[in-house]
Amino acid sequence: MINFQSLIATKAARMKLVTKGEPVLEFGLRRAQGIDGGLTASRAAYIGGCDATSNVLAGKMFGIPVKGTHAHSWVMSFPTEEDAFETYAQVMPNNTIFLVDTFNTLEGVKKAIEAGNKLRQRGYELGGIRLDSGDLAYLSIEARKLLDEAGFPEASIVASNDLDENIIASLKNQGAKVNVWGVGTKLVTAYDQPALGGVYKLAAIKNDLGEWDYKIKLSEQTIKISTPGVQQVRRFYDANGFIADMIFDTETFTDGQNPVIVDPIDYTKRKRLSFKVPHEDLLVPVFKHGQIVRQLPSITQIRERVKGQLAGLHEGTKRFVNPHPYPVGLEKGLYDFKTDLILRMRNLKNEEQEA
Amino acid sequence: MINFQSLIATKAARMKLVTKGEPVLEFGLRRAQGIDGGLTASRAAYIGGCDATSNVLAGKMFGIPVKGTHAHSWVMSFPTEEDAFETYAQVMPNNTIFLVDTFNTLEGVKKAIEAGNKLRQRGYELGGIRLDSGDLAYLSIEARKLLDEAGFPEASIVASNDLDENIIASLKNQGAKVNVWGVGTKLVTAYDQPALGGVYKLAAIKNDLGEWDYKIKLSEQTIKISTPGVQQVRRFYDANGFIADMIFDTETFTDGQNPVIVDPIDYTKRKRLSFKVPHEDLLVPVFKHGQIVRQLPSITQIRERVKGQLAGLHEGTKRFVNPHPYPVGLEKGLYDFKTDLILRMRNLKNEEQEA
Repeated sequence: MINFQSLIATKAARMKLVTKGEPVLEFGLRRAQGIDGGLTASRAAYIGGCDATSNVLAGKMFGIPVKGTHAHSWVMSFPTEEDAFETYAQVMPNNTIFLVDTFNTLEGVKKAIEAGNKLRQRGYELGGIRLDSGDLAYLSIEARKLLDEAGFPEASIVASNDLDENIIASLKNQGAKVNVWGVGTKLVTAYDQPALGGVYKLAAIKNDLGEWDYKIKLSEQTIKISTPGVQQVRRFYDANGFIADMIFDTETFTDGQNPVIVDPIDYTKRKRLSFKVPHEDLLVPVFKHGQIVRQLPSITQIRERVKGQLAGLHEGTKRFVNPHPYPVGLEKGLYDFKTDLILRMRNLKNEEQEA
Repeated sequence: MINFQSLIATKAARMKLVTKGEPVLEFGLRRAQGIDGGLTASRAAYIGGCDATSNVLAGKMFGIPVKGTHAHSWVMSFPTEEDAFETYAQVMPNNTIFLVDTFNTLEGVKKAIEAGNKLRQRGYELGGIRLDSGDLAYLSIEARKLLDEAGFPEASIVASNDLDENIIASLKNQGAKVNVWGVGTKLVTAYDQPALGGVYKLAAIKNDLGEWDYKIKLSEQTIKISTPGVQQVRRFYDANGFIADMIFDTETFTDGQNPVIVDPIDYTKRKRLSFKVPHEDLLVPVFKHGQIVRQLPSITQIRERVKGQLAGLHEGTKRFVNPHPYPVGLEKGLYDFKTDLILRMRNLKNEEQEA
């Protein structure tokens, strides 16, 4: 539930970052993993920043705007491309994004323009065209020229075809005249990293006396050593955005202390803050004793929350290449306790081996 | 439905190929994509050859054998590892695979052996141990020695930790003494290629006279040009296995013709066969006029079908590195028709441009 949805929301956020606010439509249903109809992926993509989905059921169930175009089979099912566009314009005069690459892309654009002229005579406006193959930079530039010359400067150019944030960035660098981005496979599967490795680990357990026993999992792989404690995550911020996140033990760290955040990989890398720095604790109880104790936010509220949180991250942190690492660490008291516990457990073992 | 499940079944088949029949357990639920509880992935993995799943709901719904071990949290919730193993052995005396890497792997193996000795006194046998971190080659070899010396040569060694077919092959090359393989993330997401790019395209449509109109989608990307026709796929075989698959048009290719199969990428690469060569047509109708017209096979029948089909592929075709390409092509009549149709459509366009 958490790994996958965080992954896809993150991927969607990256798409929106690179389009600099231009609409990103999620088109992934046919490649989504799972028989739930790609619902999770569509929902998470919307939460992460996508503007709409082509998944009609997801739209109905979650209130996500539904956007899409006709299929190639629509065009192929008519004797000519002109017939196909004309019939579509009759049925959907307010939603005319013509898919122009069934036979020859730029010829298709010209036929879309013809259909657009007829639409205009009837009092409607051409929505735009969609490119789904070929050299999207070249074709979008040429299509833009044709549309502008024909008097359709407002018509959108939608592009799709195995897009991801890197390809979008490259197309933008090439001057592509795309202004709506359809992203499918690479988004809904998070293609280049299709799993987020989050785990739950036991960190503390109440003993018979009602006290917390702190627990740790050791490992020869440092990354697999868990953190003990009754944990909370505190996010510090100032007027410019977020400063750092700190994992701390709620039983031992008190609000009056000045926090020292230790990098979990490098003990000598620390951030010292005043306890007066504004902050928010990120973990909130949802269930208590089997009951939901929190009013669950709407999908729109979740989406707004994501947007706000992303705005709190400095630009350098959101770079795709060599991003500035956002500081996340353990509160020093917890770090020292964890280190001590590891050493004690390993020493115990050494003593056992010597005995 | 088809893309994802074919992908995961294929991935599972690759795992079983590399373990040479040793059990492969699907452990992927926590990383599966989608809120259907990873059911599709578990089902497809079983169909592809996995022997069991840790997904209890999938086991219940589809009749897949359920296998798994206790979690690290089981061990951590007790004062000592000995207590944890002992309690587990009391509760599950017939299902004792101890996860030994919570603190120190080889010390854990020794504690599993202690628990195994106590089990034997009570008339039960130690199932085995599971390694989930560290150097799986070294640790499995050392664990095997400890278990054998202690009189547990039958105890299994289960390994897991982001395994895939390549890591399993490498561990086997290193002499790892693993005999049961737990595979999760990399299997249920098909991590290194998380989408299979299958598409439906309109290939023929009946006109008002009840005749077939053949349809094609053109593209500047050759791979995106569709194939027209009322299509069937024929698989030819002899006593050694499969020879080739041929896509043909059922309306024009007759059973008495000697088939010539043309490589879709290279027109000069062909395979000629006699019409007498045994064959099977792979496409069977499931729905007709909205009704199911086929008795659907059970999951066991599907799994056996997969196994049989994989056995029909030559070993060279199933190699991971530089596999021998299995011949798949178009029947020459269909190939020529498609080529002619593409040329005619492109010529038409040229004439239009000249006009």
